[in-house]
Amino acid sequence: MNTDIEEVVIRPEGSLQILSYQEASQLCDVTQQGLNELLRQCALAVLNTGSNEDNGLALLNKFSKFEITVSVKGRGVQLIIRNAPRHAFVDNELIVGLKEHLFAVIRDLLYARNDVLNSGHFDLQRSHGITNAIFHIARNAGLVKANTIPNIVVCWGGHSINEDEYQYSKHLGYELGLRNLDICTGCGPGVMKGPMKGALLGHGKQRYKNGRYIGVTEPGIIAAEAPNAFVTELCIMPDIEKRLEAFVRLGHAIIIFPGGAGTMEELLYLLSILLHPDNNNIPLPVILTGNAASRDYFDAIIDFVSDALGAQACELLEVIIDHPRDVATKMKLAMEAVRQDRKASSDAYYYNWRLKLELDQQLPFIPNHENMHNLNLHKNQPVHQLASQLRKAFSGIVAGNVKADGIREIEKHGPFKIVGDPVIMQAMDKLLQKFVAQKRMKLDASDYNPCYTIEHPTNPL
Amino acid sequence: MNTDIEEVVIRPEGSLQILSYQEASQLCDVTQQGLNELLRQCALAVLNTGSNEDNGLALLNKFSKFEITVSVKGRGVQLIIRNAPRHAFVDNELIVGLKEHLFAVIRDLLYARNDVLNSGHFDLQRSHGITNAIFHIARNAGLVKANTIPNIVVCWGGHSINEDEYQYSKHLGYELGLRNLDICTGCGPGVMKGPMKGALLGHGKQRYKNGRYIGVTEPGIIAAEAPNAFVTELCIMPDIEKRLEAFVRLGHAIIIFPGGAGTMEELLYLLSILLHPDNNNIPLPVILTGNAASRDYFDAIIDFVSDALGAQACELLEVIIDHPRDVATKMKLAMEAVRQDRKASSDAYYYNWRLKLELDQQLPFIPNHENMHNLNLHKNQPVHQLASQLRKAFSGIVAGNVKADGIREIEKHGPFKIVGDPVIMQAMDKLLQKFVAQKRMKLDASDYNPCYTIEHPTNPL
Amino acid sequence: MNTDIEEVVIRPEGSLQILSYQEASQLCDVTQQGLNELLRQCALAVLNTGSNEDNGLALLNKFSKFEITVSVKGRGVQLIIRNAPRHAFVDNELIVGLKEHLFAVIRDLLYARNDVLNSGHFDLQRSHGITNAIFHIARNAGLVKANTIPNIVVCWGGHSINEDEYQYSKHLGYELGLRNLDICTGCGPGVMKGPMKGALLGHGKQRYKNGRYIGVTEPGIIAAEAPNAFVTELCIMPDIEKRLEAFVRLGHAIIIFPGGAGTMEELLYLLSILLHPDNNNIPLPVILTGNAASRDYFDAIIDFVSDALGAQACELLEVIIDHPRDVATKMKLAMEAVRQDRKASSDAYYYNWRLKLELDQQLPFIPNHENMHNLNLHKNQPVHQLASQLRKAFSGIVAGNVKADGIREIEKHGPFKIVGDPVIMQAMDKLLQKFVAQKRMKLDASDYNPCYTIEHPTNPL
Amino acid sequence: MNTDIEEVVIRPEGSLQILSYQEASQLCDVTQQGLNELLRQCALAVLNTGSNEDNGLALLNKFSKFEITVSVKGRGVQLIIRNAPRHAFVDNELIVGLKEHLFAVIRDLLYARNDVLNSGHFDLQRSHGITNAIFHIARNAGLVKANTIPNIVVCWGGHSINEDEYQYSKHLGYELGLRNLDICTGCGPGVMKGPMKGALLGHGKQRYKNGRYIGVTEPGIIAAEAPNAFVTELCIMPDIEKRLEAFVRLGHAIIIFPGGAGTMEELLYLLSILLHPDNNNIPLPVILTGNAASRDYFDAIIDFVSDALGAQACELLEVIIDHPRDVATKMKLAMEAVRQDRKASSDAYYYNWRLKLELDQQLPFIPNHENMHNLNLHKNQPVHQLASQLRKAFSGIVAGNVKADGIREIEKHGPFKIVGDPVIMQAMDKLLQKFVAQKRMKLDASDYNPCYTIEHPTNPL
Repeated sequence: MNTDIEEVVIRPEGSLQILSYQEASQLCDVTQQGLNELLRQCALAVLNTGSNEDNGLALLNKFSKFEITVSVKGRGVQLIIRNAPRHAFVDNELIVGLKEHLFAVIRDLLYARNDVLNSGHFDLQRSHGITNAIFHIARNAGLVKANTIPNIVVCWGGHSINEDEYQYSKHLGYELGLRNLDICTGCGPGVMKGPMKGALLGHGKQRYKNGRYIGVTEPGIIAAEAPNAFVTELCIMPDIEKRLEAFVRLGHAIIIFPGGAGTMEELLYLLSILLHPDNNNIPLPVILTGNAASRDYFDAIIDFVSDALGAQACELLEVIIDHPRDVATKMKLAMEAVRQDRKASSDAYYYNWRLKLELDQQLPFIPNHENMHNLNLHKNQPVHQLASQLRKAFSGIVAGNVKADGIREIEKHGPFKIVGDPVIMQAMDKLLQKFVAQKRMKLDASDYNPCYTIEHPTNPL
Repeated sequence: MNTDIEEVVIRPEGSLQILSYQEASQLCDVTQQGLNELLRQCALAVLNTGSNEDNGLALLNKFSKFEITVSVKGRGVQLIIRNAPRHAFVDNELIVGLKEHLFAVIRDLLYARNDVLNSGHFDLQRSHGITNAIFHIARNAGLVKANTIPNIVVCWGGHSINEDEYQYSKHLGYELGLRNLDICTGCGPGVMKGPMKGALLGHGKQRYKNGRYIGVTEPGIIAAEAPNAFVTELCIMPDIEKRLEAFVRLGHAIIIFPGGAGTMEELLYLLSILLHPDNNNIPLPVILTGNAASRDYFDAIIDFVSDALGAQACELLEVIIDHPRDVATKMKLAMEAVRQDRKASSDAYYYNWRLKLELDQQLPFIPNHENMHNLNLHKNQPVHQLASQLRKAFSGIVAGNVKADGIREIEKHGPFKIVGDPVIMQAMDKLLQKFVAQKRMKLDASDYNPCYTIEHPTNPL
Repeated sequence: MNTDIEEVVIRPEGSLQILSYQEASQLCDVTQQGLNELLRQCALAVLNTGSNEDNGLALLNKFSKFEITVSVKGRGVQLIIRNAPRHAFVDNELIVGLKEHLFAVIRDLLYARNDVLNSGHFDLQRSHGITNAIFHIARNAGLVKANTIPNIVVCWGGHSINEDEYQYSKHLGYELGLRNLDICTGCGPGVMKGPMKGALLGHGKQRYKNGRYIGVTEPGIIAAEAPNAFVTELCIMPDIEKRLEAFVRLGHAIIIFPGGAGTMEELLYLLSILLHPDNNNIPLPVILTGNAASRDYFDAIIDFVSDALGAQACELLEVIIDHPRDVATKMKLAMEAVRQDRKASSDAYYYNWRLKLELDQQLPFIPNHENMHNLNLHKNQPVHQLASQLRKAFSGIVAGNVKADGIREIEKHGPFKIVGDPVIMQAMDKLLQKFVAQKRMKLDASDYNPCYTIEHPTNPL
Repeated sequence: MNTDIEEVVIRPEGSLQILSYQEASQLCDVTQQGLNELLRQCALAVLNTGSNEDNGLALLNKFSKFEITVSVKGRGVQLIIRNAPRHAFVDNELIVGLKEHLFAVIRDLLYARNDVLNSGHFDLQRSHGITNAIFHIARNAGLVKANTIPNIVVCWGGHSINEDEYQYSKHLGYELGLRNLDICTGCGPGVMKGPMKGALLGHGKQRYKNGRYIGVTEPGIIAAEAPNAFVTELCIMPDIEKRLEAFVRLGHAIIIFPGGAGTMEELLYLLSILLHPDNNNIPLPVILTGNAASRDYFDAIIDFVSDALGAQACELLEVIIDHPRDVATKMKLAMEAVRQDRKASSDAYYYNWRLKLELDQQLPFIPNHENMHNLNLHKNQPVHQLASQLRKAFSGIVAGNVKADGIREIEKHGPFKIVGDPVIMQAMDKLLQKFVAQKRMKLDASDYNPCYTIEHPTNPL
């Protein structure tokens, strides 16, 4: 029963993307200019949903015979998939939610390639150009809706969490759902799944028919964090920076659950925005929350933020432990505050255009050894810039842990070397060791081998 | 936080029942002819959803100050509820699903009273008249849908089951949901909730928008088994006999999970139909299933059926242990068989008119001491009639356990005395003792005090 | 091409009524207690839509071989129709709108018979009982909707009008439709069709998806005024009095177009309500309107009202000639006034419960020779009662013109004899002569033979 | 009442296009690279719906103060329109259908500019590239739907036709609507409106909820033929050649009503495809039809086709006079044939990819004096190429009659000079004279001044 599905033919239906001949050939094109390899990786990730692995490279190796092509013959263009993971199927029929994900992948890969990256239409070296490009990708994916009031809660946190943390995230999702709030996550397992599952149940009880379960991902991470099947609106942004920007512009409030390096990446990204003086008066409610046992974890994070970024940063972070109902009620109230602010400032409800981001936060950071080593992790800069630099350090660690490209880098050149202000470095080392001890770095944490070394007085490189 | 909600005003919305002045006064009428007391009991039950009690009488006593009236002033008629249980509310707003249940209760109480029981339109002393009356109540409740293929799985089993059994029922519900099958249960907690919750998740993954979660109950039991909030189509039949008939005529296949006396009541009712010679050729697929630990339980049941009704009855019962996916796949296939049969016989898909029931099975059985004592529990009759008599014995035990009227009877006159064929009596005693030992009789099973005594050679009364 | 359709089998679909076996036999029952004859007449009327005749008796004679039965075999109950008029079919398929009408007829006949007239549930000898019964029939027909603001314009006027008047009614309907107003009429041809057709086009331009085209009729008139196919919500009230009450309680404002005796019946009914002192402060906007050439017609009506009921009555009637846009704009504004009033008085938006009607206006008036002769058409009574008596006189004339029962009466006993106050009698005679001259009495007006004689000084009987 | 609407602000709603800041500035950009002038022209055309003029240049002059800008402040981007024609408004609110048209214009102008013409993504110098580009524009406009069976009837014919012809087109539209067929036209008045209006009524009677009223136009003609408000799916193709290709690839069958030069353009375009040997076996049903009085007109056309293209071309054209029901029934049957063919050939239902077009038919033809003079209107070529050349001649005449650019050309350089084979030239002259005599060239035909001269033996230039 565990063999793969040999071949399956999938036709677009209903609102799914109908392809043109030209797109079909792009998708079948296995050359560098073509999209087939990228499609193959993303499609495999989609079909691998529910798996217990998070090693993007291992996945690709395991399903080396997986193939996807687009047939230009046949009624309407159709997908032909070979050697797909069996658990994506029920009685040999692909689960409809995954079928939708597959077409979402195709839609976003084509759009990003043809209409954004290669069209010359957006100036991707300027902040405003990038912000517009993200808007266009999100709009093309159907994420931007007029005539809806602010109610999207972004849930951040780890894909690799323990059962109690998962249950807590589901419970909070349920409470959010009972209040007709919508959920947006990074679309994978763990905290990216729990709140959606809970919200689905809460929405069901409230007969809230239009519940949104938005998942925003990127080609680099999707293989490690396959979209869970509850995601009804999947969007693939070209890179992590655009993905993070999409979260803060599309979402209206943010909840941070326990997680690992990726969660720190998200938290630091958020702080780099909230600490920016231009964003002082723009409401973007944030709550850090988890089950009773997660108190330690959050204490460690607050310690790190305090050491690295100071008290001002800590003040931005509210922590609520083990009170899902209170968190949900606060989120509901926060939505009304956001609505009032958007209305007063004549800003759109569906996209936070006013939030100020600096180009440095928006340009893709390539996590190679040189770039990691060159990060400015010193206190000689405005605090929001330091937060941004720290964010990149954690981005690198995530890449080295689970992204195929990052893993290859580490295999080739050994761990990243991270240097900087001794206080910060020590704080960071301490935090990461805690993550390792708590098995938060990877799903299969049996023998985690750090992809980094941090230089500081007690740990000279 | 645990005080009751003092007063809340509820307006009908959307498709909910809009009341006339005349209906409003019927519902406010506290005299014998009026419906207020019945409404009060059912409404309280609805709002008590999620509670951990199943003693109908205790509930009424606990919320003795609970009141519901219907105001004839105000825009459209509205409900005024006082001292309602707080857990039915989120941030002081009644959960929408419960609001729908409340109006479903009103709809069905009014319809049953005005258009069925008191209208003189149905001959309730004849089998065909009863079957038509049930059809009318179900149709008025929106349960009867044209143009849908057979896919309603009736799930029977206990409201008082252990956590593992509950998880199994949810898992199987999930597998049914993945196959786009709809669920119909007795609408309470336990097995009546698990498959619905699971199916909701399965339907979500399959983007199956029209999933049905049908709950059929009766005024006598609703207080003990409050409708769970996943039920989207609630229907209150006037009595247990009409409720059971509704299950077998509206459903297309039946799954029996572990349970207690109520589950035996359902199983024996089903056998009394399946064993009827006229029903030989009408497909009504049945599977008994549970988690690994439930094997003992099902063995006990099969033993009892074998002792009491013989091999012919046992052959009708397929048992599958701990294979939810197989059960779901079998159910999916069975639906196609049902469809073919209905098509071939030109029978409706939405109501099994052909199934033969005898008036004796349909007339309300009043579980008082006299009737319980007078049951014919001997083998001197066709086996389907014996099954029907046995069903009534278990109906009585359910009433004595959890129904307000039954509990009052037992408090007044002591346990029911059940007499009959020694073999059957011994088998029954053995089975019930097992239920008691396994805490299947009631939710709060700390000190279960049997509401019956069974006379047999080793247990003379 | 003009032969009838020999036999056609019709299955209920979608939201159409699904019948029980019991209802099926009622509908097939050709005895006095059965409903077959009534169903046959109404069904024939429905299928005769678009015809140019308005003689109910002639229709029944012409299609004497028309039959309708309900088969209890077959997948779900189905209708079998024999010798139906061909123009109800397109390429041998019954037009879907007419199929819906057919099932609406069945729904209302069954409900009125089983749940209203014969159930003992309503006291039909008291005003409030009748008002409740009408509400129940309307609700069962789906006409009563919660959560909609007042916007139903009732359009009254003749079924037999000239082409220019028809075009005007269509044009005004279009202007109403452009303002998202819904239409309710008597459901036949002429003024009952024009505004609906126009509104459909206006709604289309405004993308108003939920446009309502409500037709309210009665078994007595339906054969003469077959529902036009634009009606999407058809309701058959048991008699003309309940039909008229349904109009004023369901509608929010009224437009009166040119017509004949039936229009006078409606206008006088309306005046009998508006003139009632209890209704002084309840807004029920009314406009009389028509094309330029209809000025004469309205002058004649105002003259009659002035002579018979006095200046107070005239003041209630606003006449606007040939300005459809102004009428529509006024109606739109009036709806807001109605909404404010209902809100202030906590009255329902969907049913005007507050309007005071006297039992005398509500009890069915049987238009036979005795009753017609005994009408009190004198000024020795409150003016609203006189209006009510006059309304009955016109009801009788309508019956004698087009209703099967009335035509039979006249054939048997000659014209009705109408007596009363000489001034009123003369005014009435003058008005009716004008109607005859203008061919407003019947569709086939070639040789109209009055069904009445009016006694007055210059016309002694 | 006839003054313009000074200023109105319009917000996107529901499914309407939500704009990005970048798009907003493109739309406001009045330079050559910007889209403001094109938007202004098209928007004015949209708001001019229902007007009785068809002179594109005159319209622009008349509303010289009409302005449209896109505001980047304010909740979501919004349109600000100044000095708009009053008849687009009802009680100072823009008709919703026109609002949709406005946003459709914006959507298509942006998409064509950014994603098709300027993106480098399509090779517009190759046949397949053009066909793909058209598909993309149509898909972006929502015209391409999966899971629908072939049922789009393209209706071609004049915008300037007499009342009887218009009534006939409406009647036939009604018959098509009764058969649940969808309508696609050039979206303007006359024959582009009649069938849609009729179909709306027919669809209404059949309760066909998803009726499609597709209008395909181009920036050059839209000012002369403003989209009628019945169009629910508007698409602006970049030029007449892409528009014509869209018709034949999106539609499934074609009806040609009476018209003028534009209708001949369409007919010749169609013949150039049908006569192509590669298209022999691809069903594309065509019927020419009109009211009784149009027989002459069609005779003249057939004569011209016979003279110019020969018997083979005539055989492709079926003419049915004054039998709308027969035409509709034939169309219904034809749809089934198309479906069978598409199924058999595994071709898409929603886009006729197989139809062979030559690049010469697809490249935009600029109707200036030189190009018009250089057309090869001789018989020394395959007949389908001659048809294509003739089509261009008529395109030029249409431009000279009603398109702003064409009118300017004629004003500057006098009439086009058309030369070619004497037989063809005479046939063409005769046909055009007939059109002039029948006032088919322009709406305001009081003193039509030909924009062409045709050289032939009896008419030397």
